[in-house]
Amino acid sequence: MNDGHNATQPDGVTTARLTVAPVAPGTATLLPLGIDKIRISGGFWGHRQQLNRDAIIPHIARWQERVGWTANFDAVANGTVGHTRSGREFSDSEVYKLLEAMSWEIARTGDEELEQRLQSIVERIASAQQPDGYLNTRFGNADQPSRYSDLEWGHELYCYGHLIQAAVARIRSGHHDRLVEIACKAADHVCDTFGPDGLAGVCGHPEIETALVELYRATGVRRYLRQARVFLDRRGRHSLQDIEFGRSYFQDDIPIADAQVLRGHAVRALYLSAGAVDAAVEADDSPTVEAVERQYQRTLQRRTYLTGGMGSHHQDEAFGDDFELPPDRAYCETCAGVASIMVAWRLLLTTGNLAYADTIERTLYNVVAASPSTEGTAFFYTNPLHQRVAGQPSDPDEVSPRAHAQLRAPWFEVACCPPNVARTLAQLATYVATTNRDGVQLLQYAPGTIHASLEDGQDVRLDVSTRYPDDGEVTVTVVAAPRDRWTLTLRIPSWADGATVEVDGQVSRAQAPSHTVHDAAADSRIVLRLPMEPRWTTADPRIDAVRGTVAVERGPLVLCAESVDLPGGADVQALRIDPKQPPRPVGDGAVAAGVLFVPNGGIEQPYGRLDAYIEDAYDIELPLVPYHRWANRGPSTMRVWIPTR
Amino acid sequence: MNDGHNATQPDGVTTARLTVAPVAPGTATLLPLGIDKIRISGGFWGHRQQLNRDAIIPHIARWQERVGWTANFDAVANGTVGHTRSGREFSDSEVYKLLEAMSWEIARTGDEELEQRLQSIVERIASAQQPDGYLNTRFGNADQPSRYSDLEWGHELYCYGHLIQAAVARIRSGHHDRLVEIACKAADHVCDTFGPDGLAGVCGHPEIETALVELYRATGVRRYLRQARVFLDRRGRHSLQDIEFGRSYFQDDIPIADAQVLRGHAVRALYLSAGAVDAAVEADDSPTVEAVERQYQRTLQRRTYLTGGMGSHHQDEAFGDDFELPPDRAYCETCAGVASIMVAWRLLLTTGNLAYADTIERTLYNVVAASPSTEGTAFFYTNPLHQRVAGQPSDPDEVSPRAHAQLRAPWFEVACCPPNVARTLAQLATYVATTNRDGVQLLQYAPGTIHASLEDGQDVRLDVSTRYPDDGEVTVTVVAAPRDRWTLTLRIPSWADGATVEVDGQVSRAQAPSHTVHDAAADSRIVLRLPMEPRWTTADPRIDAVRGTVAVERGPLVLCAESVDLPGGADVQALRIDPKQPPRPVGDGAVAAGVLFVPNGGIEQPYGRLDAYIEDAYDIELPLVPYHRWANRGPSTMRVWIPTR
Repeated sequence: MNDGHNATQPDGVTTARLTVAPVAPGTATLLPLGIDKIRISGGFWGHRQQLNRDAIIPHIARWQERVGWTANFDAVANGTVGHTRSGREFSDSEVYKLLEAMSWEIARTGDEELEQRLQSIVERIASAQQPDGYLNTRFGNADQPSRYSDLEWGHELYCYGHLIQAAVARIRSGHHDRLVEIACKAADHVCDTFGPDGLAGVCGHPEIETALVELYRATGVRRYLRQARVFLDRRGRHSLQDIEFGRSYFQDDIPIADAQVLRGHAVRALYLSAGAVDAAVEADDSPTVEAVERQYQRTLQRRTYLTGGMGSHHQDEAFGDDFELPPDRAYCETCAGVASIMVAWRLLLTTGNLAYADTIERTLYNVVAASPSTEGTAFFYTNPLHQRVAGQPSDPDEVSPRAHAQLRAPWFEVACCPPNVARTLAQLATYVATTNRDGVQLLQYAPGTIHASLEDGQDVRLDVSTRYPDDGEVTVTVVAAPRDRWTLTLRIPSWADGATVEVDGQVSRAQAPSHTVHDAAADSRIVLRLPMEPRWTTADPRIDAVRGTVAVERGPLVLCAESVDLPGGADVQALRIDPKQPPRPVGDGAVAAGVLFVPNGGIEQPYGRLDAYIEDAYDIELPLVPYHRWANRGPSTMRVWIPTR
Repeated sequence: MNDGHNATQPDGVTTARLTVAPVAPGTATLLPLGIDKIRISGGFWGHRQQLNRDAIIPHIARWQERVGWTANFDAVANGTVGHTRSGREFSDSEVYKLLEAMSWEIARTGDEELEQRLQSIVERIASAQQPDGYLNTRFGNADQPSRYSDLEWGHELYCYGHLIQAAVARIRSGHHDRLVEIACKAADHVCDTFGPDGLAGVCGHPEIETALVELYRATGVRRYLRQARVFLDRRGRHSLQDIEFGRSYFQDDIPIADAQVLRGHAVRALYLSAGAVDAAVEADDSPTVEAVERQYQRTLQRRTYLTGGMGSHHQDEAFGDDFELPPDRAYCETCAGVASIMVAWRLLLTTGNLAYADTIERTLYNVVAASPSTEGTAFFYTNPLHQRVAGQPSDPDEVSPRAHAQLRAPWFEVACCPPNVARTLAQLATYVATTNRDGVQLLQYAPGTIHASLEDGQDVRLDVSTRYPDDGEVTVTVVAAPRDRWTLTLRIPSWADGATVEVDGQVSRAQAPSHTVHDAAADSRIVLRLPMEPRWTTADPRIDAVRGTVAVERGPLVLCAESVDLPGGADVQALRIDPKQPPRPVGDGAVAAGVLFVPNGGIEQPYGRLDAYIEDAYDIELPLVPYHRWANRGPSTMRVWIPTR
């Protein structure tokens, strides 16, 4: 066994190594807190963490067995994989993503039975690893293409990346087990093979970069960081073959620091950005951080949907051009939402800009939360903002052959989204708060407890009570506070005009992006009140596809109209809204707005002089539901952006 | 040599057999005229026919040699094709489409040198045909997959279809040569292999159906018609495997007559519709004609762009849902335009509804004419109505790997569009006029001559003089007329409010779809005046993607704004038009309209309260050019639909 990493000198990342969180930079403006320090006790996200444990993780494990992706590892061990392998070339990574989800879930709850299930999968993976560390069920075994013979599409390094992220979760939660050994051995093999003097390639799907940096942070082994930098430096220099979609598809068109905006395959672009920030932070390379931040900011301003979703093209699962954001053809892959959160989180930690927590919140509520069904046994893969034709219900026993926007499906031929949702939900607590020299920053509002040790060793303990986002009131009780000066910073979302903070009865106005309370004593009671009236939202006029429409939002939630709420189940085409009449809440997170209802009429010609088109229209009250709940009541047509009268 | 077709009794399709035109039904409401009967002498289309002969056809022949697609046939003959073959699985068909274009061009002009070039390609193809008639360079030869082992994607029957269409062109223009022998032998092989008791399959790409019906019409051999019907009856009954895009991609989801609208891959859907009409016409099966007409009408009303372009999806080159017509992601493959003309023409002939000639005109001027460059050496493959980012100029020596909307490219990995344009231009005269028992119908306005023999043997000879579409005046001189009662019907386009027809000095108002002149004597002078003032066009409000915009049209031409005409080459995003001020012609087919010019401003957030967004705007006069000319002045951004103020 060649670990290597114990032979290398750890170099000052002690804090990072011990933080029970997926991202723990050596240096940062804001430091993450581990999921052992933050507990979500219920509410919107607590409910979903429970669902993740009870339904989502078991569902994924069951399907991975059923479709044979876990058994691929057994087949490598017994030499039959060349003839029996099932799944796409990257299916190993789905098993690893599940292991990461399980690892965080075990760290969160100490679930012994889950620990045993994890170990049993790990044993099967271990049996498939080759003596030099190589590990893949699709390449390099008998009757298979040789190792690294298809870096464009083979995904071998991408798979290692997810394996390593799972191992990091284990290390950070205090385990140094077989999974960690496998991952370190694979990482050493990668360094041996793709080092500066080795094979001068990169992976067609970035992911190994962020994983290697985190493995360095978790183990202190510098060669992992160096290898991440080697991959990042090689990117954009045409080491990959050109493909039909162009080299921008896998960001091999121009070097990372030279790009102006994210482009190509959305998940690839975002994973690469995450890795680039990670490596730059460790090298104190602020120009690269700034370059990625500039690209991500422009992407948020010009290539991001109202939901936080990213990716306008189905063909290549890619970003479109600036302002090309069709709601009906929004691809908005769930994984791109997960990946956008990864980037926003890294930029938040390194820059200290709390506005990134707005992006995380928007994406969590309107992309990640939209994916699983109420039962946690079916998932959205794409997240369009307009569904023109009601989808076909999925057979709960069938693999969905397509990533089309239909109803949620139990499983997909490409099934990255379910385990990506699972690992995000399991690690969710880390996104709730950060700490720095001065105090604690409360970023996401969920009921629970937070425990931070400030730099001088003094403890802050907070108790948070809220029904957010059903309600805008968040009560923070200071259970323990430092004797010295300290700060409690509350994120104020950009939409929260008129927010107030009450500290022990004293009310102040609070403005985005944050409000800071100084030196709150133990037993202080701080009440943040965010305005939760539904509001109209309009889009930049350069987003052509939603010209002449408005959306309704309430707090962090994007709302939508569904045909099941319209007279006779009419199509959502049939609406013209009057944005002068404010929408009003009607309970349970729903909202109603007055609209002109225009039953579909027939026309002869689609183009011409159509001023007289609207007829037989009448006023109705239009119910709107949170977007994340759409399609929970059977097939429907749906739209977020409603035409104005 | 097993022709078979001489052994069978021709059965009353004599007229059809002799018509020098691609479509010649046995029975029809309107009968086509051959390209020997109609001569386009110049003008918009005459210029393009000349370009086709001088540049487009030679360019295509050169590239097909260069990329080795013609040489694939030689490689079959010498047994090396399994190792040397180049091109996609359907590249044989591109050679056949070129042969069809050459055949019509030879029929049009009697070009002897072109005849020799055609024969030399035909000889090479002949050498690749197997003794039983099988002919394909991708399957069925040594070291290749076996015949018909991949009906979903193999395109073998599709290739025969194009071979047969080329042979029909030869038969109809009086040649019974090697090409005809090859095609009939292949057709006989298809009937032998896929007959009622044979292999129960259909081709993943329809095309063989329409080709077999026309071969029946040209030869009188009924088994070809029967085999077409067998394929059409099998379609929609899941004989093909399901694929990622679903069976609707190749219209194998439901039987033809049961569909409500065209769906799936646009070219496939349209070729199938053409074949279904052809077969139904020969069987006097009016329910099937009516079903296809209903589907095509709904497609025109809900799934067709202003240009006549069809297909909203890049991913599967497919129709979108009803009203899903994004201008920026319009795929609008040039071939789908060609295919739509094929369907409209067949429906026009069988129903006699001249409004289909409006559709043909719109598609010819705004899709087909847009494809070739001014020099005839580069082509558009897709035809978007909004270009957000200026394209990269194509290297004239490079094969374009993608069907992306960039600038016109010299060649494509999938190069169906150039030869499809070439065959359409070569056969264009047939679409100009039809005849029936009563007289002649003038459908497209181009300078030239028309000669029709009415049923009683009396001749009509017309001389047409016009600068259309630069000008709306069309002068028809009756050179020869029957002594008895007869009619000359002029198509009045649906946009032509206020059209007039002057007969020997007497002016009448004329209304769409047609105006009929009775019993015009020889030497009569008939002047049609179509209003050519530029006009605003709005879209059905259910086409979400162009809400709040207008387009400008002039006669049959759709106009567009290009960034090269804006101050400082600004992006076409920067426009807000006032549809109360009429646009005005400025010569050379161009138009100008007053717009508010809004130089791009920076914004922080793309969503929010943006009422105050427009600033620093000023009025300019916006030049608009015919869409078919766009991108002729270098890279530009472009839009057809202009936002209103």
